[in-house]
Amino acid sequence: LAKRLVRITLADLASRIGARLEGDGDLQVSGVATLEQAGPEQVAFLANPRYRSRLAATRAGAVILTDEDLAQAPGSALITGNPYAAYARAAEILSPEEQPEPGADTGAWVAADVTAPQSVSIGPGSVIESGVSLGEGVSVGAGCFVGRGCTLGEGSRLWPNVSLYPETRLGRGCRVNSGTVIGSPGFGFAEEDGRWLRVPQLGRVLIGDNVDIGANTCIDRGAIGDTVIGDGVILDNLIQIAHNVVIGENTAIAGCTAVAGSVCIGRRCRIAGGVGIAGHLSIADDVVVTAMSLVTKSITQPGTYSSGTPLQANRQWRKNSIRFQQLDQIARRLAELEQAAVRQSESGDDV
Amino acid sequence: LAKRLVRITLADLASRIGARLEGDGDLQVSGVATLEQAGPEQVAFLANPRYRSRLAATRAGAVILTDEDLAQAPGSALITGNPYAAYARAAEILSPEEQPEPGADTGAWVAADVTAPQSVSIGPGSVIESGVSLGEGVSVGAGCFVGRGCTLGEGSRLWPNVSLYPETRLGRGCRVNSGTVIGSPGFGFAEEDGRWLRVPQLGRVLIGDNVDIGANTCIDRGAIGDTVIGDGVILDNLIQIAHNVVIGENTAIAGCTAVAGSVCIGRRCRIAGGVGIAGHLSIADDVVVTAMSLVTKSITQPGTYSSGTPLQANRQWRKNSIRFQQLDQIARRLAELEQAAVRQSESGDDV
Amino acid sequence: LAKRLVRITLADLASRIGARLEGDGDLQVSGVATLEQAGPEQVAFLANPRYRSRLAATRAGAVILTDEDLAQAPGSALITGNPYAAYARAAEILSPEEQPEPGADTGAWVAADVTAPQSVSIGPGSVIESGVSLGEGVSVGAGCFVGRGCTLGEGSRLWPNVSLYPETRLGRGCRVNSGTVIGSPGFGFAEEDGRWLRVPQLGRVLIGDNVDIGANTCIDRGAIGDTVIGDGVILDNLIQIAHNVVIGENTAIAGCTAVAGSVCIGRRCRIAGGVGIAGHLSIADDVVVTAMSLVTKSITQPGTYSSGTPLQANRQWRKNSIRFQQLDQIARRLAELEQAAVRQSESGDDV
Repeated sequence: LAKRLVRITLADLASRIGARLEGDGDLQVSGVATLEQAGPEQVAFLANPRYRSRLAATRAGAVILTDEDLAQAPGSALITGNPYAAYARAAEILSPEEQPEPGADTGAWVAADVTAPQSVSIGPGSVIESGVSLGEGVSVGAGCFVGRGCTLGEGSRLWPNVSLYPETRLGRGCRVNSGTVIGSPGFGFAEEDGRWLRVPQLGRVLIGDNVDIGANTCIDRGAIGDTVIGDGVILDNLIQIAHNVVIGENTAIAGCTAVAGSVCIGRRCRIAGGVGIAGHLSIADDVVVTAMSLVTKSITQPGTYSSGTPLQANRQWRKNSIRFQQLDQIARRLAELEQAAVRQSESGDDV
Repeated sequence: LAKRLVRITLADLASRIGARLEGDGDLQVSGVATLEQAGPEQVAFLANPRYRSRLAATRAGAVILTDEDLAQAPGSALITGNPYAAYARAAEILSPEEQPEPGADTGAWVAADVTAPQSVSIGPGSVIESGVSLGEGVSVGAGCFVGRGCTLGEGSRLWPNVSLYPETRLGRGCRVNSGTVIGSPGFGFAEEDGRWLRVPQLGRVLIGDNVDIGANTCIDRGAIGDTVIGDGVILDNLIQIAHNVVIGENTAIAGCTAVAGSVCIGRRCRIAGGVGIAGHLSIADDVVVTAMSLVTKSITQPGTYSSGTPLQANRQWRKNSIRFQQLDQIARRLAELEQAAVRQSESGDDV
Repeated sequence: LAKRLVRITLADLASRIGARLEGDGDLQVSGVATLEQAGPEQVAFLANPRYRSRLAATRAGAVILTDEDLAQAPGSALITGNPYAAYARAAEILSPEEQPEPGADTGAWVAADVTAPQSVSIGPGSVIESGVSLGEGVSVGAGCFVGRGCTLGEGSRLWPNVSLYPETRLGRGCRVNSGTVIGSPGFGFAEEDGRWLRVPQLGRVLIGDNVDIGANTCIDRGAIGDTVIGDGVILDNLIQIAHNVVIGENTAIAGCTAVAGSVCIGRRCRIAGGVGIAGHLSIADDVVVTAMSLVTKSITQPGTYSSGTPLQANRQWRKNSIRFQQLDQIARRLAELEQAAVRQSESGDDV
């Protein structure tokens, strides 16, 4: 079972990824691999200085690297300021993602009034409800649910078993991986006599262009206004985005992070995995939050923020952990000692 | 693509949501919106004092509010002791949730012996196994799996791509959102010679009436006895409820929280997001646990509980975090200083 | 609606679970239950000393227990060194898991070149793409997606609505529960001019034999190399396993844990729920990590590791939590006091 094989010359590849070629432009290459595993027909890359020592011994047909590393390259080189980005482009060219065949599978349920150009692909078992609009080249995987009135922009792709609730809007070039749910009602309930009354969730989810969403992630629709995900945002797996959250352009959020209702996150933020962000907060642009931190106040300045305690052997941790419960008392006792020392020193002065 | 439009008089609305009307009872209203965005045909609400300043400038046809805020209302008012609950009812009336058409889609696989009154709706691609019983008005979305012998009470609704393992019972008026899995085998394994032996999970999941469950949440079946979710419980997205957990009536649990096996949670608790509750614990009624706390002992008294450390700039956090590892030693050194001070003071007294 | 009923003699059961029988070998038993709830035709077990007091009053037809507890058994006993494992076997025999009927449902979409022996079961609404190979007795539940070129070993079972991306390999005897996604592209992006460029994820997910995977869990495919899950690994619900993670044999991971990219976890580890493991770390064999800990350095020695702070009433916790922010300063002040004490003591000596 072969993937689609692409074979091009190094000169061609260099020009397509925007790199400068040093070496054999006529060499045919047909795939990418690591410095260690690449063979003479494959292209490798060196982006992380940690792996510099592996460069000399590589058997790769060519290596994507910076000018700085060029002298150590044993063979042909593709030189660029950003080897990892150039590698991403080379990999896309040499190992292109499989594209599903255009057309709606006979096993799909597509409402009569769905807008879908010929270039659209719809997999078996998927359901496309009334009023949906699919752009050129959109692909809807097997078993997806696309609710009434959803809009998917040009070239967007849903992998199998994605659920889009009614009125969800995806821009162009988005990817949504399996099991992800977008547009589900937010967790909005009014308390009345000790019971919870469901508050209708009337907003939508609006997703920009080139947004990448992992597997089993959830994005809730807004309560009255909308939940908004900006252009170029990337979301990992198992993320919870609550109702009325707004995420700025090109922000990245790693797996298992939970963003509570009405949070507004700026642009180019990097939120690590397992983070929690409490409701109604604002996070400035260019903020980094480290793994498993809890954000309970708005962050107004760019920078890196953290909470939590470091890992220790359980035996030591238990001792310190018990002391944490006494910390306020420890601080007060320390202050008393300091005051006593001052008094003593003053009484000494008096003498 | 229009939603169903409802237009009624203010007098009618007031009577249906149980509010007292001050103003124009003949005014026709047709939707809800925020104080800022509502127009003269829409109803807004003021429940949070934080937004009181927005009341004077609203263009809303009527505002739902308390007696206390009535004097500031610029137009008609719907007066109630609980504006948020009254708003929930008004929104339900003015923007009713779409109801799927009754009937089983020809693209659904429904076993011959399934009990399903005419009012039931079954979406395409869904599978209803043998022995399932569906109450009046039940709706099963596209692509759902309802395993052998499940029971869904009157008016319950499964959104698309929900999986119910065999023998799961849902009460009346429940909502289950997409991607949620109920009744999967619990994480029960016996260790034997360094290997894990699967322990058959023979219990069920029993869910009460009016339970609301978010998207991509998991509720495992019991090992021998059952996992039990009480009436009126509300669960957000991406929650893990392990085998044999019992959750009391009207308890609310926010997203990404994990409840380990055999935990018993009381009534009217509020468990925030990202919380962990270790196995076999009991949590009293009316307990509040704040976000990302870890509960490792039973909680016997109502109240609010927390763990964790506050967010700081990473540079400061690192310093404090390192000191946490020395905390027991710090406490011991403090105690020594205190003792030295006492000795000195005593020796001073002796002089 | 009856489950399959199995009725065998105690002697037969003893022999099949490898236990020594004391008592009535001709007794017919037909199910398992707890010590408290078992009737005279059922088998109970005593594995946890905590429940020893319940032994005397049990009405169970027989109890699985150790030699040590034999004297207190009121009736027949099945004696073994590992009662919980023996119970797992007895439960499997007396309450066997239902097996789906062999054959591909007419409502499944199965590519023409799929390898599937007669013993395979394929549920309605599932999609099996080209080049897939299914071993003897494999069962694919309703609504599953099995992508191009996947391989499922003998006896493996997918519950409904599982998604396997192309080229995923499962060994023999694996279980994958509903909503789980395996082989989705890892969270790999190159930054370029403040934007994220998708890095093609070219590796696969390779899963060993007898691996058990919970519901709504995600395992990403490798970036260049593969993500590898060893034989006998058990994974709970809602777990995130990122690209190129390697997990050693018989390691157990509980729910809501997130393992970042390229982490290598050893054999027989026990990772509790809600844990985070940062990227590129190594965890030795036989490591235990307690609930909601964050691992940010490699762990080279077996043992138990923890992070976090203990739960307290919110009022106390707030005070201590504020002090955590001053912890470095507290430590410095303590050191100053100590130095002052030393100086004073020295100056005292001088006198």
